[in-house]
Amino acid sequence: MERRIILPKKGDYNVFKFEEIRNDKVGPNEVRIEVHFSGVNFADCLMRKGLYQDAPGYPFTPGYEVSGIITEVGENSSFKVGQKVMAGTLFNGYCSEIILPEGQTLALPENYSLAQGASVLVSYLTSYMVFMAQARVKSGDRILIDCATGALGSLSYEILKNYNVEMVGLTSSAHKKNLFKQKGRTLLLASELTDQKFDIILNSRGGRTISDDFNRLRPNGRLVSLGISNALNASFINKWKTLLNMPWFWIVKLINNNKGVFGLNLLKMFSYPETIEQALKGFNEFNIVPPEVTVFKAEEIGNAQRFIEEKKSMGKVLLSWRD
Amino acid sequence: MERRIILPKKGDYNVFKFEEIRNDKVGPNEVRIEVHFSGVNFADCLMRKGLYQDAPGYPFTPGYEVSGIITEVGENSSFKVGQKVMAGTLFNGYCSEIILPEGQTLALPENYSLAQGASVLVSYLTSYMVFMAQARVKSGDRILIDCATGALGSLSYEILKNYNVEMVGLTSSAHKKNLFKQKGRTLLLASELTDQKFDIILNSRGGRTISDDFNRLRPNGRLVSLGISNALNASFINKWKTLLNMPWFWIVKLINNNKGVFGLNLLKMFSYPETIEQALKGFNEFNIVPPEVTVFKAEEIGNAQRFIEEKKSMGKVLLSWRD
Repeated sequence: MERRIILPKKGDYNVFKFEEIRNDKVGPNEVRIEVHFSGVNFADCLMRKGLYQDAPGYPFTPGYEVSGIITEVGENSSFKVGQKVMAGTLFNGYCSEIILPEGQTLALPENYSLAQGASVLVSYLTSYMVFMAQARVKSGDRILIDCATGALGSLSYEILKNYNVEMVGLTSSAHKKNLFKQKGRTLLLASELTDQKFDIILNSRGGRTISDDFNRLRPNGRLVSLGISNALNASFINKWKTLLNMPWFWIVKLINNNKGVFGLNLLKMFSYPETIEQALKGFNEFNIVPPEVTVFKAEEIGNAQRFIEEKKSMGKVLLSWRD
Repeated sequence: MERRIILPKKGDYNVFKFEEIRNDKVGPNEVRIEVHFSGVNFADCLMRKGLYQDAPGYPFTPGYEVSGIITEVGENSSFKVGQKVMAGTLFNGYCSEIILPEGQTLALPENYSLAQGASVLVSYLTSYMVFMAQARVKSGDRILIDCATGALGSLSYEILKNYNVEMVGLTSSAHKKNLFKQKGRTLLLASELTDQKFDIILNSRGGRTISDDFNRLRPNGRLVSLGISNALNASFINKWKTLLNMPWFWIVKLINNNKGVFGLNLLKMFSYPETIEQALKGFNEFNIVPPEVTVFKAEEIGNAQRFIEEKKSMGKVLLSWRD
């Protein structure tokens, strides 16, 4: 019996329900995937709390990424039954079987386990859109990443290691600074950033930090704003405060500073399937080493989200459907 | 006797004065150039009319580009006496001799006449900053240029012909549309742009047209705003109207649209000499065919500017100092 997890309403860790699913027929250029692992992301926790504006209405099935084995292919498919794959999904990833367009599906790299296959695509797609599709990284760039110690930071590093660039991460923790130094990565405390300038800045914190980072751009530099992570775990009042603090840029200011600003919303990018497909096609070029994974049984979804919210995870948290 | 042209105050075509110059010593990494030709740009006309906010205070010597022969080199120079060169200057180009940093100076390409050498650099630097340094053009881009029929449009075409891109120019003239079609370039009337989408848009008109062009961007697309050419020849009231119509972009709007905006002010870029130097170093890679030139004697500066303002010029207007 194939199942999916339902988020029926805003709630605590025990709010989730399971229900049986019977999937439709597989259409042209679609594949049916026997899901082995579903990735759990921080955004999923925010949806459970009712704090994610782009979530669909309740009830719905969260989840952005899965890995598994193809059990059926539609007409014209370039995939084969039995093939191991990983896929990005626009919600609905918390399930034991899913039908997806081929453009969101990618053959599992040979050196990946199925678990690792469910651990990279959300961060990869985000990082790809920031550095490849929007900022268009090039040799010699000096790059600041304000979420360097998380999954997105790791994937950014994995993409950018393929370029001759200087990557600086921002951290608030002297402990993490030393930890990442051992891995060969440079982290700086905010107090150490004084007067440092960058060609590309990835800003995920939002609010007033965007204007600070804008001032850190070199001429012809570009900032990519990912949203408002500062606000997402905050109180109702602080959430609105951060939103109201999201800056406006007068084009005349951009002209007089010779700078650029981008914004990225990955969910809305799924409305342009060719953009997602192109990003996925590039995956194998980057030789991406997947993060460490912590696996929970699907029934333990509440504990899996708690594990993330209590910041116990050092890598990626997965749900297992077949163990 | 070496001379320069002085713009003593706002005025008509006969406002210019000439004065003798005695240049300083040539410092390290500087060169002395016997100027043969000075380029005349539309911005120079605006300065004469007092309509250019970034101009220095009166009196001053306008002029952004020269060509000529090196007569003296400073310590550590990579240039040689007798070498033909072209150079970008931050004002002061209307003169028969100039001392410049080497970083602003470039050996004249072998297939260029000295006149052609004074006809490309301002448009080249602008176009380079737009497409190479800010937008970072890449294969497959679809590009809209709203000033396609002028010098900047030509240079943009010369740079972009080296990439596998689709370039569309905007024009208000059915006549020019046909003229450029014969040259193999695509121009569209504004009415033909409906629903067309682009990866890169160069907007030089400013005002409300920026928001229209923003809506023409594909996801991950980028607009580069050059300023407010719409306003520059307008009445005082219309000038301020255009300035007030220059849009503000809320970063949240950029996020929800997955788009980016840049601004370019070439004059302010001269505060970052390494940026100018890098752009000039790339010049020979593009195999740029210079525009046609119309040459006036330096004493005819008033007529030269009139020629530009009456839109009689199809290419570049130059002043000659040595004929």
